[in-house]
Amino acid sequence: MRTPGIGPVTYRQLIARFGTSAAALAAVPDLARRGGGKAPPLRSRDDAEREIARVEKLGAKWLALGQGLYPRLLAELEDAPPLLIAKGDLNLLDRQSVAIVGARNASAAACRFARGLAHDLGQHDLIVISGLARGVDSAAHDGALGTGTIGVIAGGIDVFYPPENEERQTALYERGLVLAEMPPGTEPRARHFPYRNRIIAGMSSGTVVVEAAPRSGSLITARLAAEAGREVMAVPGSPLDPRAQGCNQLIRDGATLVQNAPDVVEAIRPFASQVRSPRAPFEPMLEQLNGHDALATVEELLGPSPVPVDEIIRLSGAPSGAVQLALLEIDLAGRLEHHAGGKVSLRE
Amino acid sequence: MRTPGIGPVTYRQLIARFGTSAAALAAVPDLARRGGGKAPPLRSRDDAEREIARVEKLGAKWLALGQGLYPRLLAELEDAPPLLIAKGDLNLLDRQSVAIVGARNASAAACRFARGLAHDLGQHDLIVISGLARGVDSAAHDGALGTGTIGVIAGGIDVFYPPENEERQTALYERGLVLAEMPPGTEPRARHFPYRNRIIAGMSSGTVVVEAAPRSGSLITARLAAEAGREVMAVPGSPLDPRAQGCNQLIRDGATLVQNAPDVVEAIRPFASQVRSPRAPFEPMLEQLNGHDALATVEELLGPSPVPVDEIIRLSGAPSGAVQLALLEIDLAGRLEHHAGGKVSLRE
Repeated sequence: MRTPGIGPVTYRQLIARFGTSAAALAAVPDLARRGGGKAPPLRSRDDAEREIARVEKLGAKWLALGQGLYPRLLAELEDAPPLLIAKGDLNLLDRQSVAIVGARNASAAACRFARGLAHDLGQHDLIVISGLARGVDSAAHDGALGTGTIGVIAGGIDVFYPPENEERQTALYERGLVLAEMPPGTEPRARHFPYRNRIIAGMSSGTVVVEAAPRSGSLITARLAAEAGREVMAVPGSPLDPRAQGCNQLIRDGATLVQNAPDVVEAIRPFASQVRSPRAPFEPMLEQLNGHDALATVEELLGPSPVPVDEIIRLSGAPSGAVQLALLEIDLAGRLEHHAGGKVSLRE
Repeated sequence: MRTPGIGPVTYRQLIARFGTSAAALAAVPDLARRGGGKAPPLRSRDDAEREIARVEKLGAKWLALGQGLYPRLLAELEDAPPLLIAKGDLNLLDRQSVAIVGARNASAAACRFARGLAHDLGQHDLIVISGLARGVDSAAHDGALGTGTIGVIAGGIDVFYPPENEERQTALYERGLVLAEMPPGTEPRARHFPYRNRIIAGMSSGTVVVEAAPRSGSLITARLAAEAGREVMAVPGSPLDPRAQGCNQLIRDGATLVQNAPDVVEAIRPFASQVRSPRAPFEPMLEQLNGHDALATVEELLGPSPVPVDEIIRLSGAPSGAVQLALLEIDLAGRLEHHAGGKVSLRE
């Protein structure tokens, strides 16, 4: 999972095919060569052991997809992180949760509202998840600190960002929980935040957007929640307030208007039973390939326009396992691009 | 229509059965006696002629249900007013319209919003209808005065209420239109306002609620619009603002969230073609009764709990025309109560 060019989807497919990471790692160079590219630069065993030791020294724990306390709802995402690093109270992972997200430069009123809502959701036994950012995120964590809150951060588990949140993040180590996908020491960069947002949306039964500008990160989180089939909720505001536009648009687009904790509790009730229902994270590819090689056929069917994998399987006439393997090879060669809705295209 | 105890529904049924008001008036005493009560106190021809002369002297006109410029959409209501008194520019009646309603004690921001929205809707060739009340109503009229606005008032056409709106109402006589259902000189009373609200909702393709407390008159107008099958729209506000609660609840209940004129235009587009499509206001009762008398049967089927008229017809086994006549008789005797959804019960 630390190999450049191997994302969570590819990781999942490799493990599904080869059973263990050792077998997958051994196979990668050959697969990539067959796919028409160079093997990605694999990390050494030493690298991995150094990171494991560092996490341990930081007092943090690993959560592995499909094992132990790894959040069940998050495991349902196709691109669920294979591993998470967690520091704090792991018991919080076993309870139903709601994300509260919103603008970093939110109004004082919105922050007060987010804090109150988080507090009230805590009284309903819900865990509040947010991103430890300025504004709405910070207010949500503060409101739920007494009842249970999880901060998902874009950088390493030991990196305070924004710096003024050091005290709040430390409070979450001690009385809540902090989760990170990136290795310790990682300074968060712009591209890390959408990854972080998918974890927030993916862990939660629903996402409440409190105040968000159009085209903001909070709306990305809302979209990811919708794509994961979770409840999207938004707090309305006056059309005269530009900071309310994102939320009002979400409601026009079908999000549930929420004004208080009971509204949220009612909206996410259908998800209550799913929090603890386990699901096999790696579905083994049962189909036998019988030596079938679909690589040439699949390469021919791929182009610069995204095509659903299902359609490639149908058009190829090959067993789906053989098509999946061919796609994996092209992927590891750095030539495949993944798109929303299970579509793929050839990288230009 | 000025007879106490004869509401618009009964009026419509009488005209449908007897063809003209003269024939209906002649029949009323007998019908009421058969229904088991006293005849309602009928007004004299002199009374009617005095009112007609007074309306003329005020420079106002009569609009009769189903005739001339009587608003087509309003005519679709089961309880459409048989007559309206109009003062101002009657041309405004022939165009698509939207109601803007809201709190009398609305915030300055809400009034500013209502004025701007009304102005922008005028730019989209829409007539703005409201109730000439304080607050949102007044702001809506002001915003649309240059493009076309209709004020529906609860009292007589010549009565200024609230008094400080005299100048505004006079401006509507001259540059807009004022409509009244009650006779000239009527001071508006609490019971008149729901009647006024049904006209506002009934004339309009949709109703926009700008700021409304829970259980306010504006929400009644919204409910009447929904019952008439029109678009219900609401302007959201922060949950921290108690004045936004009515609108936010409307949106939760299914009203369309609107933030600006294009949102409204989009929502009411399906009604554009209906403004001018005529509809027979008095559907004649074609069925012959053949001397069938259903009065005793219908009386037996009625009780203190509201029952749909359709069900009474079915249970009676009598022709529906005979049941309708029996209900009319009981109604004119003052013993029938009308409920929403075409239900009736016996008055205790």
